[in-house]
Amino acid sequence: MSLKAFRGALLDFVDDPFYASEADSVRYLPDGLLVLEDGKVKALGTYESLQASYANVPVTVYPDRLIMPGFIDTHVHFPQTEMIAAYGEQLLEWLSKYTFPTEGKFKDKAYAQEIASFFLDELLKHGTTTALVFTTVYPQSVDAFFEEANRRHLRMIAGKVLMDRRAPDFLTDTPETAYAESKQLIEKWHGHDRLLYAITPRFAVTSSDEQLRLAGKLLAEFPDVYMHTHLSENVNEVRLVAELFPDSDGYLDVYDRAGLVGSKSVFAHGVQLTDAEFQRLSIARSAIAFCPTSNLFLGSGLFNLKRAKSVDAPVKVGLGTDVGGGTSLSMLKTTSEAYKVTQLRGETLSPFQALFLATLGGARALSLEDRLGNFEPEKEADFIVLNPRATPLMARRNPTAIATSLPELADQAFATMILGDDRAIHATYVMGELAYEQG
Amino acid sequence: MSLKAFRGALLDFVDDPFYASEADSVRYLPDGLLVLEDGKVKALGTYESLQASYANVPVTVYPDRLIMPGFIDTHVHFPQTEMIAAYGEQLLEWLSKYTFPTEGKFKDKAYAQEIASFFLDELLKHGTTTALVFTTVYPQSVDAFFEEANRRHLRMIAGKVLMDRRAPDFLTDTPETAYAESKQLIEKWHGHDRLLYAITPRFAVTSSDEQLRLAGKLLAEFPDVYMHTHLSENVNEVRLVAELFPDSDGYLDVYDRAGLVGSKSVFAHGVQLTDAEFQRLSIARSAIAFCPTSNLFLGSGLFNLKRAKSVDAPVKVGLGTDVGGGTSLSMLKTTSEAYKVTQLRGETLSPFQALFLATLGGARALSLEDRLGNFEPEKEADFIVLNPRATPLMARRNPTAIATSLPELADQAFATMILGDDRAIHATYVMGELAYEQG
Repeated sequence: MSLKAFRGALLDFVDDPFYASEADSVRYLPDGLLVLEDGKVKALGTYESLQASYANVPVTVYPDRLIMPGFIDTHVHFPQTEMIAAYGEQLLEWLSKYTFPTEGKFKDKAYAQEIASFFLDELLKHGTTTALVFTTVYPQSVDAFFEEANRRHLRMIAGKVLMDRRAPDFLTDTPETAYAESKQLIEKWHGHDRLLYAITPRFAVTSSDEQLRLAGKLLAEFPDVYMHTHLSENVNEVRLVAELFPDSDGYLDVYDRAGLVGSKSVFAHGVQLTDAEFQRLSIARSAIAFCPTSNLFLGSGLFNLKRAKSVDAPVKVGLGTDVGGGTSLSMLKTTSEAYKVTQLRGETLSPFQALFLATLGGARALSLEDRLGNFEPEKEADFIVLNPRATPLMARRNPTAIATSLPELADQAFATMILGDDRAIHATYVMGELAYEQG
Repeated sequence: MSLKAFRGALLDFVDDPFYASEADSVRYLPDGLLVLEDGKVKALGTYESLQASYANVPVTVYPDRLIMPGFIDTHVHFPQTEMIAAYGEQLLEWLSKYTFPTEGKFKDKAYAQEIASFFLDELLKHGTTTALVFTTVYPQSVDAFFEEANRRHLRMIAGKVLMDRRAPDFLTDTPETAYAESKQLIEKWHGHDRLLYAITPRFAVTSSDEQLRLAGKLLAEFPDVYMHTHLSENVNEVRLVAELFPDSDGYLDVYDRAGLVGSKSVFAHGVQLTDAEFQRLSIARSAIAFCPTSNLFLGSGLFNLKRAKSVDAPVKVGLGTDVGGGTSLSMLKTTSEAYKVTQLRGETLSPFQALFLATLGGARALSLEDRLGNFEPEKEADFIVLNPRATPLMARRNPTAIATSLPELADQAFATMILGDDRAIHATYVMGELAYEQG
């Protein structure tokens, strides 16, 4: 038994601020103590209330910092790290011009390992401790990713990409090899240490009916495994799916008929969803990864967050960076662009709602809320130490480091969202161990 | 006579890449020499071609860097620096809730001076060497700004804000005091060293007909002076202007009837402009400051850049950060968000077009192209030293520091736009003197 503690301002969420009041959903302790045992949360409270009980426990103190649960990125492509910021195209053209050639390089496992290592270090530097990750069609790229994630003891979800058509030959599998290789990878990695597997058809355009059907069969055989794909990102994509699946009742229905729409299914984007599709996702308890920097960069459109978070037919939502379609691995920047999307829609997104999406909301979207997402006892202690005064401009905008009330905290958190980037991440902890500290 | 030279990769524009080909508009010297005399450009060419002629001139060498003209921010509010990232409102509500109370603090000249100093240092750190700047209604805030700009020997344009209604009493002037104070400030500052004056009615909502008329009279008396205001930013604002000026033929016409629409008039935003208004701006040779981070943050909408840069009725366009409505003082980030706006409109913006807007395009919008904006002989030597590999991610995305062809440069420039921020600004020079260097 190994106990340790962290003292500082602590912020996490105990409920969803889209539905509950801020007072009921935000937990803020300006002078808190977070006690860990063997990498998990043992206790959380004000320093005053807990110090006597844990008097002999070593304490790391972070004055002038804000300690929060680690960020959760619900949609990102590790092989696209190096092709971030590719110019001038919208989704379908961007895929063939930039993405497919880049992903071809991941047949080489050593290369895949190098990029996976770089990618995971960048995630930690940006305060992201858990992600749902696309790899490539090559099983060795999945191995490379999981090996690197495991080396860092991270909770990560990933899977081999399935594509059996409309992609270069060197990037395609078949329904049968996709099934067999995925099954083998599930058996190898799902539940290994903190790693989890996601069956990952790229999207309806690049998978035949038969490939989707077999993916659904695999999911039925391993109901504990995730399903991760893209859905209704771009207008031309939706049109193409309708042409490719003339018998389907819309884009989501293509996945639904294959048995791919369930409570562990995560769909990236959903910018073009119909009302009926939102309803269906709500009933199925599926999740959407809202990827604002990508949706703006590729010109896909403005996600209807208000509809997704409606009271009558709520859909689980997390935030995704979607690098390389997205423009930053920073979840702070992602919340900032999410705010801009809601503003363009004439709606808004409060700082607490945004930070909820980046933490507990992401955990719920990934069905990990029993393990991650806030500082409840027994949860895994992945957390970050934020500096709301990391740059001269942030320091001027946030004159006091420690907010003393919820409104003051909201203002500070909002400015940190809008102005912050990796410089605001002072340190990142994984299972209670320091995994990154700003140099 | 004082000669000095800088050796490195040099990039500037000699024509407008919205109308001319890249080959005709982009000047790129992978190993160039920029020779200065008394703070102005004396000669520009390949190192090879010029070295013999300037063999005795001291040379500063920047290997692995890109030397460009300083950025030009065509619309920004220095008093709003500290209220950047204010939450949750669109234009009109944002003004009364956040902006007006903040601007009230600038009655105190010492405070105004402190913020002006901070603001100008931040501009230099972000690579911006010239800006068209809103101050406040208080003449002492104009003095404070110009004093600080002059201390840094910067070419800056600014003016006292005119508001005689629909603002708190402490922030309003009258048509007569506005006229008299502006006139006094013009005589004091316009043409003083590198400083220039702009008559600055905030916008039609906060100026009476009489105030606008007197502003027009002043502009007629000083035709060399600028006019700087806001125009058609937000739908509710346009509606309110129509109510306030029932006899006008649209928003622009309110300014036009007062004699405020001319070749030295710069209008911020123009998101909601009608086709007739674009035509009128083209004929009048007025300029628009396109402020993408602000237009997204305040949910104002998507500026029609394509229309503004049309061949048949071209309007001069510069980029503005519009801090505090905008979310960053970085012109790199501003180009990045400009790209996203064009993508959302189903159009696009090439990296060279974007960097043109941030340099020579801005100079043209501010009628400063005879003095600034590129490296033509006799121009003032305000320039920046860019590091396209400033972060680990940028270094991976831009594997070679010095591009050897235009397509390679375009790719590098685009990645630098999308991924870059103040960290990519290695150094900033003003009139050939080092004004900022990354610590």
